[in-house]
Amino acid sequence: MPTLRLALCQVNPTVGDLTGNADRVRAWTRKAADSGAQLALFPELMVTGYPVEDLVFRRSFVAASRAALHRLAADLAGDGLGDLPVLVGYLDADGPPQVSADAEPGRGARNAAALLHRGEVVATYFKHHLPNYGVFDEDRYFVPGDTLTVVRLGGVDVALTICEDLWQAGGPFAVARQAGVGLVLSINGSPYELNKDDARLPLVRRRAAEAGAAIAYVNMVGGQDELVYDGDSLIVDADGTLLARAPQFVEHLLVHDVELPAAPETTGGATDLADGMRLVRHEVPAIPPASGGPAATGGIIEPVADEAEVWQALVLGLRDYADKNRFPSVVLGLSGGIDSAVAAALAVDALGPQRVVGVSMPSQHSSEHSRTDAEDLAKRTGLDYRIEPIQPMVDTFLANMSLSGVAVENLQARVRGVILMALSNQEGHLVLTTGNKSELAVGYSTLYGDSVGGYNPVKDVWKTLVWRLAKWRNADAARRGETPPIPENSIGKPPSAELSPGQLDSDTLPDYDVLDPILIGYVDGDLGRDGLVESGHDPAVVDKVLRMVDTAEYKRRQSAPGTKISMKAFGRDRRLPITNRWREDG
Amino acid sequence: MPTLRLALCQVNPTVGDLTGNADRVRAWTRKAADSGAQLALFPELMVTGYPVEDLVFRRSFVAASRAALHRLAADLAGDGLGDLPVLVGYLDADGPPQVSADAEPGRGARNAAALLHRGEVVATYFKHHLPNYGVFDEDRYFVPGDTLTVVRLGGVDVALTICEDLWQAGGPFAVARQAGVGLVLSINGSPYELNKDDARLPLVRRRAAEAGAAIAYVNMVGGQDELVYDGDSLIVDADGTLLARAPQFVEHLLVHDVELPAAPETTGGATDLADGMRLVRHEVPAIPPASGGPAATGGIIEPVADEAEVWQALVLGLRDYADKNRFPSVVLGLSGGIDSAVAAALAVDALGPQRVVGVSMPSQHSSEHSRTDAEDLAKRTGLDYRIEPIQPMVDTFLANMSLSGVAVENLQARVRGVILMALSNQEGHLVLTTGNKSELAVGYSTLYGDSVGGYNPVKDVWKTLVWRLAKWRNADAARRGETPPIPENSIGKPPSAELSPGQLDSDTLPDYDVLDPILIGYVDGDLGRDGLVESGHDPAVVDKVLRMVDTAEYKRRQSAPGTKISMKAFGRDRRLPITNRWREDG
Repeated sequence: MPTLRLALCQVNPTVGDLTGNADRVRAWTRKAADSGAQLALFPELMVTGYPVEDLVFRRSFVAASRAALHRLAADLAGDGLGDLPVLVGYLDADGPPQVSADAEPGRGARNAAALLHRGEVVATYFKHHLPNYGVFDEDRYFVPGDTLTVVRLGGVDVALTICEDLWQAGGPFAVARQAGVGLVLSINGSPYELNKDDARLPLVRRRAAEAGAAIAYVNMVGGQDELVYDGDSLIVDADGTLLARAPQFVEHLLVHDVELPAAPETTGGATDLADGMRLVRHEVPAIPPASGGPAATGGIIEPVADEAEVWQALVLGLRDYADKNRFPSVVLGLSGGIDSAVAAALAVDALGPQRVVGVSMPSQHSSEHSRTDAEDLAKRTGLDYRIEPIQPMVDTFLANMSLSGVAVENLQARVRGVILMALSNQEGHLVLTTGNKSELAVGYSTLYGDSVGGYNPVKDVWKTLVWRLAKWRNADAARRGETPPIPENSIGKPPSAELSPGQLDSDTLPDYDVLDPILIGYVDGDLGRDGLVESGHDPAVVDKVLRMVDTAEYKRRQSAPGTKISMKAFGRDRRLPITNRWREDG
Repeated sequence: MPTLRLALCQVNPTVGDLTGNADRVRAWTRKAADSGAQLALFPELMVTGYPVEDLVFRRSFVAASRAALHRLAADLAGDGLGDLPVLVGYLDADGPPQVSADAEPGRGARNAAALLHRGEVVATYFKHHLPNYGVFDEDRYFVPGDTLTVVRLGGVDVALTICEDLWQAGGPFAVARQAGVGLVLSINGSPYELNKDDARLPLVRRRAAEAGAAIAYVNMVGGQDELVYDGDSLIVDADGTLLARAPQFVEHLLVHDVELPAAPETTGGATDLADGMRLVRHEVPAIPPASGGPAATGGIIEPVADEAEVWQALVLGLRDYADKNRFPSVVLGLSGGIDSAVAAALAVDALGPQRVVGVSMPSQHSSEHSRTDAEDLAKRTGLDYRIEPIQPMVDTFLANMSLSGVAVENLQARVRGVILMALSNQEGHLVLTTGNKSELAVGYSTLYGDSVGGYNPVKDVWKTLVWRLAKWRNADAARRGETPPIPENSIGKPPSAELSPGQLDSDTLPDYDVLDPILIGYVDGDLGRDGLVESGHDPAVVDKVLRMVDTAEYKRRQSAPGTKISMKAFGRDRRLPITNRWREDG
């Protein structure tokens, strides 16, 4: 049986940075070649980044993607890397992409893969299964391909597929079996979700069985707006054996020798292909020779605990949002509470303490510990700590307007928002807002107050998970002999907005260990009132919570982007009408 | 030839208000019956309102829609209206709707129509063509139907279709011809766009020719979040003759007698139906007898000027947003400039002067005319006028922080935002923000400052159109002998943000009659740099404008909803990555 040394290049592209992305392919192809690889794989839409959304409709962008691809092929050859076949995702189109009901069939953009060899594009493939759920809108953007591409290289028949092709039965993997291939390449831009890594390996195994072939699965890594790609690239054998697996959340070169069946001398003309697809075959005449040295083994990374995984996802999402948008630093309000403490610790892990400004903004309702806990956090993490009392500004508003009750509470939060934005305008920081997912769900925040900010690291984190993350991060630091970043008092004290005397979250909201399971069922699970009551929740509490969630829709729409870690993060993957009179409780 | 008296009920439902929507069907069916109608038609998804978005995924919501439909059928019979067949849109599903790649085919929600007669649902139809572009996401929400429903009533064969079925060739209208029907019913939830009414009639005529049958087209009217439905219901004969046409932007009962071919004694079993569809036939045994009186004629409304049409769309969108969300009143800042003047005039037209609060918030940089023009507007419109000087609050911030340049400019706008939100919290108003589409496009606004607000009436209106609307509204008032609402000085003076001494928009932006055509090409037309330069624009100006648009994405994402009047309003129908390093100018 032939052996192929595969190099899975788990790298971090940026949407729209065609030059930077191509440079990254050249640098990592060099590493792959240096490791003796005979075939290198890069993620889905590597050339453009993913998701490109409405850029797809711009003819000039499609042309730029095509031009970048051909320049990349030539540059690789110019680099002396032309013999190594490189599979890379890019954006293509059959003609100018169209967006309308009258679009002609076959006119439109393609989510495409190209095999580059000796300075040329020697084979292409267009994604067949297009995802159109959750964060995906590919029915809007792409025309599905109907042809499986099989390439013979190094004596092995290899099929090309892209991402969603793996998640749906039928289509390319069924045709791959009909074509008798030995290996299926799967290039991905598969966003992280809690527990998705647990679903990935069984899924790849199922498709390996369906195709009767080994699968090399390479995934993107890095943050792009609300999405974070976790990598987790892997290789399984035709019988489902896991051969190699890369770590999550870091760029990684996974190099592994895979024994594969030799392609037959002649290939039967398969007919009646699955899903009405067609089949096209190419041959890559020569690839780098097999290494004479010891076999390459990529190793198998073991999964980590959920808290560690989420923490890494949030750190990477925040770092890439700041860096890819070229923010020199971030600023956030430090209340002494758990949300801002966790957000600050995430920011310090992402950017280093010298790029994080924390501002204590006490008022007359602020407790003594709100300041001392914020100070303690600053000392533990080394961030740039400031104090800006809000009382003079609040008093001037109150002297000039007749305000009472919730208007006075919100005023304090809004003065804080103005201070953070003034610091942002003056010094160039990105403002971080720190409302957790539970608060966002029930609208327990001040619009244009504590919700002010360009990015929210804990937007998709339920309050009870915020606490778990804090405890995990502190314990992890202790385990490594480092200072735990988050003050124990911030973890232990009862949550309060401190906008009126003696105020506690529990005056308004159920306890978070009652609230969160209801929210998880209603928001993440689309359970209705009856389903929640059947699950054992108190009907009166359910009614109260559902009413809060249903009426907070506008505030949620105004919330800042933040790293998504679940199926139903608020934002683009949750779409509800603001004007909606339907209530679960009738 | 038989004659059928059709009643097209062009009404205004609210998303989620299942009881209110059903009550509306009962009230309008009564009117239809009183006019001697033999068949009444209501819009797409009449029972639930449209668009329902992620409510579709909630099992309890689908169950509520089904229950409301059957109760409606019974209630109509109880009202003594059971003999009149009523076609109404509702939400259905084959089983619990699923959202995932693994959804089983045929499991999922349906965009459905039901014919109600004598207390029963006697026929249903599931929408075949699902739109998935612009504001539509129906591939995400619905499973397409594959069966055309034909109902024989009053001796005529009548086919049922829904909205997008009309906009795409093939499918239901082709099968309708194969089935030999005399009339196709088309129920719609078709959002307004400038010039869409001009496309509608030719399209309906084309489908009448395709089906070889008359078409009765009924559309929803009213505002739902960013969408506004314009009505414009109409009837064409099989030869394309326009028989009747309803006005836009108002509820309307269009009753018209249509001569139709008698159904054949026997219907041939058509085979090989278009698009692989199936065909099902029903019979409605008895309908109300034809009126002995004079023929009913619905009349043909002539189209109005673009400015009148847009003005009505914006008024209806704002009115329904306020009323459907149950806001008692609105508040907005009055700068004396054209945007806030037009927004105020729209608000007064929508809600009446007693529901509109206008606040002048002068600073040390405010011109004398900023106050006198605002006062003049208040007098002309009769709105509730207030003055809240911002200087004391601005001075207190400046005394407590070291701010300069743009930070000081933005501070003033943010203090104004805090004042408006405080009034909203204290008195219950909806805050209107008034940035026009040109400002939003280039980011010429203060985030959390003048962008504060729950709704923006001019969000989708280019600056040059704002001026045209103002002139049209004043001229229209003069024509009717009323006081023109907008001060001439607000229309005539050069635009300024008045955030620093002597500041004018033209210090930062090209003149709006240079800027707007570039923005329209880039934003609405997806033209690239080269296309814009080829159209005759100055390359240096194009580069400057494109760079501003590309870097303003985050601000645009934070903008308030507002009535959409174009294909590419900012918001849900324009999706661009924030982190995007691609630039048209390289």
